[in-house]
Order: sequence, then C-alpha cells, then structure tokens
Amino acid sequence: MNRNITIFDTTLRDGTQGEGISLSADDKLKIAQKLDALGVHYIEGGNPGSNSKDIEFFQRAKSLGLTAKLTAFGSTRRKNSIAEQDASLLRIIESGVPAATLVGKAWDFHVHTALQTSLEENLAMIFDSFAFLKRSGMEAMYDAEHFFDGYKNNPEYALAALRKAQEGGADWLVLCDTNGGTMPGEIHEIVSRVAQELSTPIGIHTHNDCELAVANSLAAIGAGARQVQGTINGYGERCGNANLCSIIPNLQLKLGYSCLPEEKLRALTSTARFVSEIANVHMPVGQAFVGNAAFAHKGGIHVSAIMKDSKTYEHIQPELVGNKQRILVSELAGQSNIISKAVEMGLDVNANNEKTKAIIDRIKELEHQGYQFEGADASLELLLRDAFTESVSIFTVESFKMHVEKSNGNMISEAIVKLNVGGQQVYTAAEGNGPVNALDNALRKALVQFYPQIENIHLSDYKVRVLSEKDATAAKVRVLIESTGLDNTWSTVGVSSNVIEASWEALLDSIRYALLQMDRVEIGNPPATERLGLVNH
Amino acid sequence: MNRNITIFDTTLRDGTQGEGISLSADDKLKIAQKLDALGVHYIEGGNPGSNSKDIEFFQRAKSLGLTAKLTAFGSTRRKNSIAEQDASLLRIIESGVPAATLVGKAWDFHVHTALQTSLEENLAMIFDSFAFLKRSGMEAMYDAEHFFDGYKNNPEYALAALRKAQEGGADWLVLCDTNGGTMPGEIHEIVSRVAQELSTPIGIHTHNDCELAVANSLAAIGAGARQVQGTINGYGERCGNANLCSIIPNLQLKLGYSCLPEEKLRALTSTARFVSEIANVHMPVGQAFVGNAAFAHKGGIHVSAIMKDSKTYEHIQPELVGNKQRILVSELAGQSNIISKAVEMGLDVNANNEKTKAIIDRIKELEHQGYQFEGADASLELLLRDAFTESVSIFTVESFKMHVEKSNGNMISEAIVKLNVGGQQVYTAAEGNGPVNALDNALRKALVQFYPQIENIHLSDYKVRVLSEKDATAAKVRVLIESTGLDNTWSTVGVSSNVIEASWEALLDSIRYALLQMDRVEIGNPPATERLGLVNH
Repeated sequence: MNRNITIFDTTLRDGTQGEGISLSADDKLKIAQKLDALGVHYIEGGNPGSNSKDIEFFQRAKSLGLTAKLTAFGSTRRKNSIAEQDASLLRIIESGVPAATLVGKAWDFHVHTALQTSLEENLAMIFDSFAFLKRSGMEAMYDAEHFFDGYKNNPEYALAALRKAQEGGADWLVLCDTNGGTMPGEIHEIVSRVAQELSTPIGIHTHNDCELAVANSLAAIGAGARQVQGTINGYGERCGNANLCSIIPNLQLKLGYSCLPEEKLRALTSTARFVSEIANVHMPVGQAFVGNAAFAHKGGIHVSAIMKDSKTYEHIQPELVGNKQRILVSELAGQSNIISKAVEMGLDVNANNEKTKAIIDRIKELEHQGYQFEGADASLELLLRDAFTESVSIFTVESFKMHVEKSNGNMISEAIVKLNVGGQQVYTAAEGNGPVNALDNALRKALVQFYPQIENIHLSDYKVRVLSEKDATAAKVRVLIESTGLDNTWSTVGVSSNVIEASWEALLDSIRYALLQMDRVEIGNPPATERLGLVNH
Repeated sequence: MNRNITIFDTTLRDGTQGEGISLSADDKLKIAQKLDALGVHYIEGGNPGSNSKDIEFFQRAKSLGLTAKLTAFGSTRRKNSIAEQDASLLRIIESGVPAATLVGKAWDFHVHTALQTSLEENLAMIFDSFAFLKRSGMEAMYDAEHFFDGYKNNPEYALAALRKAQEGGADWLVLCDTNGGTMPGEIHEIVSRVAQELSTPIGIHTHNDCELAVANSLAAIGAGARQVQGTINGYGERCGNANLCSIIPNLQLKLGYSCLPEEKLRALTSTARFVSEIANVHMPVGQAFVGNAAFAHKGGIHVSAIMKDSKTYEHIQPELVGNKQRILVSELAGQSNIISKAVEMGLDVNANNEKTKAIIDRIKELEHQGYQFEGADASLELLLRDAFTESVSIFTVESFKMHVEKSNGNMISEAIVKLNVGGQQVYTAAEGNGPVNALDNALRKALVQFYPQIENIHLSDYKVRVLSEKDATAAKVRVLIESTGLDNTWSTVGVSSNVIEASWEALLDSIRYALLQMDRVEIGNPPATERLGLVNH
C-alpha cells in the first residue's frame, strides 16, 4: 500500500480559533512561507467568505510563489438556496486558490438541531456545492463535520453524506472528529469501514479534547487514511487541533510513512518556534519533539547514562527534527553554531583558544538569563565583535530617566538621556506616545547631530515576551526590536525584569549595530549617508 | 473481565523531574492530601534513598491519615552486593510506608551499557530485592525500566526480568516506556503477550515524548493492564509523564472502566489547578478536560449551535470533571456570544432592547481598538455589569506617576498613585523591580488598608502583545493580566499605545473585579476575608 501521507496544515484557519491567537494578514504571510519551506502539501489560509483579512491574505499570497497548494475554507451552500448564488462559495472561487475545503454536516442530530433542515436537503447541499466547485475547475475536499459522532449515531446517514460528496466530485473525504471525543479504537474501526465503502481518498481531522488527537490521527492512517489535517503546535479551538509537529515525526521516523523530504524534517523545530513567536503563544518547554526540554536530561542517572550512549534515554536523535540534547545542570548552547556564526562574520576564531571559550561561556550565561540570539542576529554580532576585535566605543550612556504620568485623563511620557559621544557630553529630552517611543526619540535626538544617517533607520517591529509567567509583573521580559535601514533589516534583544530597561538595551544595540556598519566611524566625520543600511547579514 | 483500574500517582516523585518543578516537603504534603481527596489508590511520595526531603515527607505524612497507600521509590539492589545490606532498600523499609516501587533493568542493552554488569547479575538483583521487601512485609511493585525497548530488542530477556520479579514476590509488574518512544500498536501487542505469559497483575508507566502517553496508557489497559502510573497535568522529565487528568476521564467516561468514585471525578479540575498553583507551573489554557479553554467556544457557528444544544459541540458535560462551559467573545463571533455571556452572569438582557444594542456596539468598538475579551472574562463582566446594573464605584483614580531611572548601573522604578476611596484621598508611593510591579505595589498599598483581602490576590500571568507591529515603539499594545485568588482565577485587559497605561488599565480592572466579587462592598466595613476568591465565575 502507498506509504505517502499528504500533510494539510490549517494553522492559519482552524489554528486561529485557539484562545488568545490572533494573526494579522502580515503574520499569516510570514507563516505561510515558513510552512512552505517545511514542505507541507496544503496550506489552508482562511475563510474568504467570513472576513476581509482572509481575502487580503489570499490576494497578497499570490506573489509568494509557494510550492504548497493554498486552500480556502467555507461551508456547503446555505439550505434551500442555489450553489451558484452562494456568497460564501463565490468568495472562495474569487480568491483564486487552486483548492477549497468545504465543511458539511454528517451527523443527523446536527442536521436537525444546528442546521434545522431535512436530512435530504443536507445531502443536496453537499452534492450541489461540490459539483459547483468542480465545474469551476477547483480541487475540492469535504470536511465531514462530526463524522465519528454521526457514524456512531446513524452510520448509513454518515456514509450517505460521504457518498454525496464523492458523487459531486470531491477529491478527498476528510473525516472530522470535530469535538475531539472519539477514542483511537473507534477511529480505527470507523475509518476502516469507510475505506471499504468508498473509493475517494480519505483524510483525518482530529481535535485534542481527550489528549488523543495525535493518536487518533495515527489510528486513521493505520486504517487507510492518506491525508492528515492539523496545525503547528496543535493550535486550535478549545484543546486544540491535532499537532503536526508530533504527527509528522511519528509517521515518518517511527511508522515508516513518508510525509516530508528527510532534510526538511530538520526544519520542524525552528518552524514550531517561529510560529509560536509570531502567534505570541508561549511554547510549553515539554512539547514533544520540538520543545526546549524534549531532549533535556535532569536526573543524575539519566545524565550519566546519556554520556555513555545517548540511545539509553533518547528515543530518536534530536537532530532529526532540528532539536538538540540539553543537559540541565549546565545550559549547553550550540557552541558549534556560535563558532560558525563568527567564522561567517570573518572573525578569527578557534574552538580551543581562550577568547573563544570565554565568549561561548558568556553567551551561554546570557541564554540562561533569557536572551535568545536566534531572533537577534545583530545583538549576537555585536557580542562576537566586542570579543574578537578592537571594540569601537561610538558612544557611552551615562544615564537615562523615564517619566510617565497620567492626571486629568492626560498621559505624558518623557525621557531624558545623558550620553558621552567622543568625549562630548550630550543631554537631551524628548516626549513620545509611550515610554519606549520617548526613549527612542531622545536617543536619536542625541545622536542625529553626529550621525545624520540615523534619520534613515526606523524601528519596524517591537515584541515583548514575558519569560517566566508565574512571577507575573515581577517576571523577566525579553524585548526583540527589528530595525530597518535603507534596504536591510536587523534584530536586537534586551532582557530585564524591567520592560523599560529591556527595551532600552535592545534600542542601544540596534543603533550601535547600525553605526558599526559604516566603514569608518569617526566623530565629526560621519560617513556617507547611503552607506548606512547597505550591509546584508 | 475486571473493569476496575488502579490509579498510581507519581506527581511527587517522577513529576518533580520536570524542568522547573521543585516541591518542598510542605508542598508535597498539601498535594498528597489533595490526591487522597481525589481518590487515587497509590501516592508515590519520593525516593527516601536519594534525599532527605523525601524522608521528611514520609515521616510527616504518617499523621495525615490518608486513605491512599503511600509508596516509596527506589532501585533494585546494587550489583554484586546483598539486598539486606543495600542502603537504598533499607531506607525504603525504614520510611514505614506500606508499599514500594523498585525500578530495575529489563533491556539487555541497558544492562551492558548503563549498568555495566552481566545479564544474570541483573536478574539476581531483581529477584533478591523483591524477595527482601516481601520478607519485610511490604507490598512491592516492579517498574520494568525501558520494558518496551527491551522487549523489541530481546523479548526473552525482558520477559525473564518480569519472571524474576514475579518469583521474588512482586505484587505488580509495571511496564515502563521510559523514553516515551513506543507507538500505541506496539504497546497493545506487547502488553497482550505479557498478560498471556505472566500471572501477576500488570501496570503501565508511559512518557509523552511522542505526544502519545495517554493513548499508550489506554492501549495497555485495553490489552489487560490494570494499573496506570501517571502524574497530575502530566508533569515529568522531558515531555512529561502520562497525564492522569486525561487518562482517568477517558477510562471512566468513555471506555467503561472504573477508576474513581463518580462524585470524586468532579474534583479533577480543581485538583489539577491546585497542583499547578503549588508547583508554580502555568497551566496551558487548552489542557484537555481541566484547562480553562477545554470547553470554551469561539466560532460564531459553534456558539449558535451550542445555544441550541450543548451536545452539538461538547463531547462530555464539563461538570462531570468539575469544569464548565465558557463562551468566548471575539471578532470572529457575533452578538449571540455576548448575550449568552450576559445570561450566564444572570443579567437581564434581551437582544432587542436599547441597552443591549448599546453595549454590543461598545464592545465591538473596543475590539476594533484592539481589546480582546476572549482572554479577559473579568473585564468583559465589568463592562456588562456597568451597563446592566447599578454601577458601584469602589474607588476612583485621581492620578498616577511612574518614574524609571538608570544611572551608574542602578535601576530604580517607583510609582505614585492618588486614589479617592469612598471620599477619602489616599496618596501612596512604592518601588518595584519594574514599572508595572511598582504600580501594582502602589495600588495595593493604597487599598489594603480598606480591603485587607487584597493580600490574598496575586498576579499569576502578565502578557504583552504589540498590536500593529509596523508602527514599532509607537504601536498599540495589549496587556493581559491573570490574577489568582484563593481558588479562582480571572483575566483582565488594557490597551494603549503606552505599555504603562495599558498595564495600569488591566491592573485596575483586576482589582475592581476582585472587590466586586464580595457580597457587600462598603467602605470601612470590609467583608470577611474568606469571601474573597471564593466566587466562581
């Protein structure tokens, strides 16, 4: 039997139903590119019939040149109406995507209670909708809502719904465990029956309400399904959708199926972390395969056995999914990564010399404190340059003060900074519409007289991440700032229990990095404006 | 066949191997009482041979009068030694508990590589250790480490290890998937074989490295195991142990087994949240069965169906596990969500009246500004209460000031607030380790003299989300604050381009919500301390 499994990602559609998850069109475009690089086969982008943000996404996604097929989501036509005139179906066709997924009822109880129509009309809704999409030249999949509950209540009706979709021309029949309540044994039995009864390929779409979404997806594949729908990190309504970050390695590394090209599987961890950053959802340290603790060893016995042979306590090589082993007694950042980064920058490094050891220790210490250099290349470059080259002190900070006040409904934010620029003391104050904006304004005001090129830089992204949620407002925060020059972009990081201090640190790194990109940094002799922002990294 | 399943909780032993989890002897005593009230059969308290904290726990636990059996953990005797002289086994006996669990090798590779002894000596270690414990009058269980890997590598040796434990008198043979890498199908097949070969009752102990620990536990039960070992919330090394909070309801509500008395199952959610508080680990909102979002509905279609019949989108009644349904208000949903929320709060609403229309417009306008109420129930309740009931002004804010300064490497954050509490002006200042912490401290300091119950509230989570990233530091931010009282939790939201103002807004809502939960709010006549935090919402 065919061992190739089609991966259908719905992070951008069903994933956004998760509590606290809200993605802008920009966010969605970034995630779509990352998913495409991972090698998933379908990317469900949204529901063009329900909101304008998704229409914008599909419009802009056309220029991305994705290899994966973009799919739009919608429902079967409204009851007692005509498919050709259904606004939601028309929006799908207008979106210009090659494939669509339509959800439709398969549980008789739902037809009566939620849809409030006859069983026959629901079957007609399914048939008409697929026939219309197929006449429009699209690939079309049927998400059979509550299929398993429906089958348990009335197997013949649930199968009839599938048959109608098949007759209408549906290319996939996707069996949905919409409320996540079905057990793996039931999934296996019911999918087996469907595979016997129908010739159209079968997909599986599960939810995690019983903490069984991954197992249920595997059970369906074992019974003959050949498409899995899920989301990165298992985002989704209530307890989430099936987690592709677990399903893919289980299928591919354990069960002998093929989902992604082997080398792409190594992008799994970075993809999971990227999506968690964009969605601003904290990733549980213990998340299977991709979590920071997934291959972390704490117990003394485990660690000593791991040192003898990592197979003693690791079920797979962490590198296969792009993760790495960690020994919790000492934080082990990837020393080889750091060295290769320094080599890439043209620095003279050698794993055995004292300077290299010292900077690796320093970076490990910073990571332990909560710094993350994966998303802050420019801060890492500054650290490495400071360690390996003659440090150029462009300016030093003597102090800053920040004042926020609200009275009579008026908010005031002002910042005062005192710098030393090449021996000259500069003392400036500025207002802003928030404390970080005020600090940014004051810092620029102090430096622009020496470096007019700073006018060309702007902060293009600002992210705040609370690191240890349990300590609430006394917790550490990590600030990531992305800055954009004339034609490049760089990112810097700051960490502190004080959000103002963390932002200040990232701001300083950003400006310092920009200034260091100039060929010669001489006070009173600023380099040509156009040089600034031309360095790619 | 017997459908009674024995629940073995190892939160206090294997659970503490999780990253970031550290429990004092006091913490362990509190959790043990809560586990006993839930009705688990065994509570593994720790390893008396490895640390003195666990010896103290067993000493003090004697006076708790627990119904559950306390068990101590250890290893089979050291190689080439005598069980009767083994320090670790002697500590177990001295601890005075009625039962013990000994881990021992069952994988030949581990005997060679980790233990570095002969296969025969390992079998002798198992036999001697159990024979000694049984002569000492204890109940004794064998945790067969890496049993499944061992079986796959050398089935006869893995079975021989079990036989030795059985010959030594072990009361349970617990098959451990120590590295969490085994698939459900393999578990089922191997447990079935063990059940055929050996007469001693079988237990299952799984880990979540493939996100399959729950499914693997169910597969083992289906194949004849009658004891499940796991932890509350799935705490444990790497990706965690099997999560009893999912296994128990799956076995009992879905698969027809009996684990706990039915009325005790209703304590599951409060037990899970209590353990998460004591362990100081944030519970994922989407945790199956017991999470805050496990029965939360967001999508408009789902909500309108749920209003017709909650069975349409809920796989069980949330009350069976002590959880409850929540309707999330979001841009994706419409007015039906808001109305049902108001009805849930007992407010007199009607979709057609003016007041209802006005508040729906107000909420839509706030959502447009960036507020998100799906993660901020308490802020939404305050809005609805203000709209539909006589508004109670507990205090008003006249002004606040916030000052952050860094000079000579020292950071100072201080806040000054001026409130009017029932006609009395209160003017306080406080420091903090960051601006929000300083504001929180100043606000509490101003109010605690009137409402001493505020001492019992703490901020349990703080999230910052930058809404329009392209505007960088001038962008709007949304702050979500989660607060925890004696036994409940509520969330509030603030939005501003100024992170300080947004935090302040969410802080004020949090305190106002807490104060409104009291029966009577009268200045100078604060209600009984114990009322605060006792209201469920």
